[in-house]
Amino acid sequence: MNILPFAQLLNRVREMRPLVHHITNTVTINDCANITLHTGGAPVMAHAPEEVEDMVGLASSLVLNIGTLTTLQVEAMLLAGKQANRRGIPVVLDPVGAGATRFRTESVHRILEEVQVTIVKGNAAEIATLAGEQAEVRGVDAGEVAADPIQAAQSLARQLNSVVVVTGKTDIITDGTRTACVDNGHHMMGCITGTGCMGASVLGCFAPVVDDPWIAAVAGVTAYTIAGEIGGEQADGPGSFKWRFFNAMAGLNAEKIAEKAKIRKISPSPKP
Amino acid sequence: MNILPFAQLLNRVREMRPLVHHITNTVTINDCANITLHTGGAPVMAHAPEEVEDMVGLASSLVLNIGTLTTLQVEAMLLAGKQANRRGIPVVLDPVGAGATRFRTESVHRILEEVQVTIVKGNAAEIATLAGEQAEVRGVDAGEVAADPIQAAQSLARQLNSVVVVTGKTDIITDGTRTACVDNGHHMMGCITGTGCMGASVLGCFAPVVDDPWIAAVAGVTAYTIAGEIGGEQADGPGSFKWRFFNAMAGLNAEKIAEKAKIRKISPSPKP
Amino acid sequence: MNILPFAQLLNRVREMRPLVHHITNTVTINDCANITLHTGGAPVMAHAPEEVEDMVGLASSLVLNIGTLTTLQVEAMLLAGKQANRRGIPVVLDPVGAGATRFRTESVHRILEEVQVTIVKGNAAEIATLAGEQAEVRGVDAGEVAADPIQAAQSLARQLNSVVVVTGKTDIITDGTRTACVDNGHHMMGCITGTGCMGASVLGCFAPVVDDPWIAAVAGVTAYTIAGEIGGEQADGPGSFKWRFFNAMAGLNAEKIAEKAKIRKISPSPKP
Repeated sequence: MNILPFAQLLNRVREMRPLVHHITNTVTINDCANITLHTGGAPVMAHAPEEVEDMVGLASSLVLNIGTLTTLQVEAMLLAGKQANRRGIPVVLDPVGAGATRFRTESVHRILEEVQVTIVKGNAAEIATLAGEQAEVRGVDAGEVAADPIQAAQSLARQLNSVVVVTGKTDIITDGTRTACVDNGHHMMGCITGTGCMGASVLGCFAPVVDDPWIAAVAGVTAYTIAGEIGGEQADGPGSFKWRFFNAMAGLNAEKIAEKAKIRKISPSPKP
Repeated sequence: MNILPFAQLLNRVREMRPLVHHITNTVTINDCANITLHTGGAPVMAHAPEEVEDMVGLASSLVLNIGTLTTLQVEAMLLAGKQANRRGIPVVLDPVGAGATRFRTESVHRILEEVQVTIVKGNAAEIATLAGEQAEVRGVDAGEVAADPIQAAQSLARQLNSVVVVTGKTDIITDGTRTACVDNGHHMMGCITGTGCMGASVLGCFAPVVDDPWIAAVAGVTAYTIAGEIGGEQADGPGSFKWRFFNAMAGLNAEKIAEKAKIRKISPSPKP
Repeated sequence: MNILPFAQLLNRVREMRPLVHHITNTVTINDCANITLHTGGAPVMAHAPEEVEDMVGLASSLVLNIGTLTTLQVEAMLLAGKQANRRGIPVVLDPVGAGATRFRTESVHRILEEVQVTIVKGNAAEIATLAGEQAEVRGVDAGEVAADPIQAAQSLARQLNSVVVVTGKTDIITDGTRTACVDNGHHMMGCITGTGCMGASVLGCFAPVVDDPWIAAVAGVTAYTIAGEIGGEQADGPGSFKWRFFNAMAGLNAEKIAEKAKIRKISPSPKP
């Protein structure tokens, strides 16, 4: 598989410096802003219903993350998401903890009904929940997932007409037809909070620089997990991993990505 | 005093991987999530009244921290606390800044009236305030406290039927009858924000793994302050202290705790 | 220009340990608390309308930052600001993203109408917006600013009877009559989120220790940007910059400031 077109998208992010509007949780909001900067974007966080439509009007993409959801935030996400759809800018959704509480599951379904989401990114349990399968969600972590995550992702992608990213040891990126697996990453990424959320921010940086969101998502996941790999190899604990990971993302370039990328395109599954 | 039973509880945290539900402040919420991971627990932060009962239903313990309190958050804390009581899972309360404003003091009293709290952890001024003594609270820092902190803690513990932890150069842990003092720690812990809040998260990790909350609290305080000691000895400033402290907590094990622990059990005070 | 009186103010911050009450955004609130500690102040974050007046009653200064503004937060800011005015303690305003959305611009104008602000600190676009000029604000970053930032700052300072600080490669500090330019700093400061917000926290530490807010602002900006310089020279990426910057701020002293300060006082502009 030719890696170079994916690797070179990072250069385009840095040329364009997309403004990535986040409506996100209070746990990892600082990390999301920083990783956006280190990837090459410009983060802006705004969640008041009074201003989200104006802010989307300036943005290159919108990232919605339900990690610490409130009723007011759902309202803001719907306003922002619809405005993003009107403007035609990409929307990335991170359904953190979908399946853990009824409030989360219902809010995500409402967002998906009212907003055309470009990329949905979650762990296996969250994606299985959205795909309508039974999944054990333990807080915001993936529990045991019975079904095949690739099939769940493909099914959800077709259902939503979105690109679906399933994170894990191997990351899966599918638009329902094309499916790639990325084997990059490092176990340290699971030892700090925020690596999931930050992944969505990186997708928010890549989505505006290319018309095909599946390519954007494969490129974003690959860049991000390679930065995790470099940071993890240098770290002697999760505390030092975090800042080394940030350094690695900021210091990443197309050459390093092309050298380290482990992307496998898997044969299309038959439509059901 | 036999340290080993306390030291070995850390292994049990790591085997159980308790889900620690936090309703906490926006200042240190990221730090609390990370220290929970590094201790061996799984953090989940959820504060919408619509979902806290569902989330408590999945959790092993509940941590309530009033650092950036709102009316809505008090409501969520009461719902979550009562649900935790119904389920019989431990509740840790960090009354940040109790005594500084009437809103904080009244909210803490309301929580303590409606929820049976397992462990209350505060600095000397906060605990003195809750024990009904005059104390100078300066923002969220302990000011001058007139009374004997051990007596105040013992009195509060008996009054609430809770374990009370008073943090400071020496940490005090009492259930009103048994009282231990822990002399571990490092002055650097006072040079960053969040060490108080993170201490409560660690207690939230230890509380579910043993039936006796006093033992859990002694073990948790000891592990945490030893990690602070190790981090502090390696750091050349508060910026590097923070990540070294995280590394130290993640790298801690029962042997290091047994080697470094400075726990003194003090003779029981006469009941008043 | 005699640097020493500015440099020595840091000692006074550390003697006084001012309690700096913040009502601020959720993105950088942790960073603001930490930089306040490292500068020598004591941070307290409280934003519930029910308690902000009480908390201002204990504080040495108040920092208002609209980075993730909500309607409720504006209400809290007005209550806190008026109370600060009644008590005669300094108020620092960081109009993050003013000009980007109508909600931000209108909220800032409302705060400035109802509260006498001691120091307003923003980037060139934010200050131009407040000064009534056309400016391109891109999210929360400064875009292209047509007008002369020094003139805009002087004009705004006279209009508000405040000290105005314009941050950038060169920082401008003016009370409308006296104007200083500070050429310290490091490009790494723009590679992480929060350096703007943290600058306001540092001003909140310096403002209470001297009667003349222009002197406080010059001293605060100089100390802060020198810490950025030291941190930046030692860092090999934005991840390591952040903790080295914190270390540098905590390790800063009057001698280092006097040695490195690049303050230029520029000739007073004629009053219009």
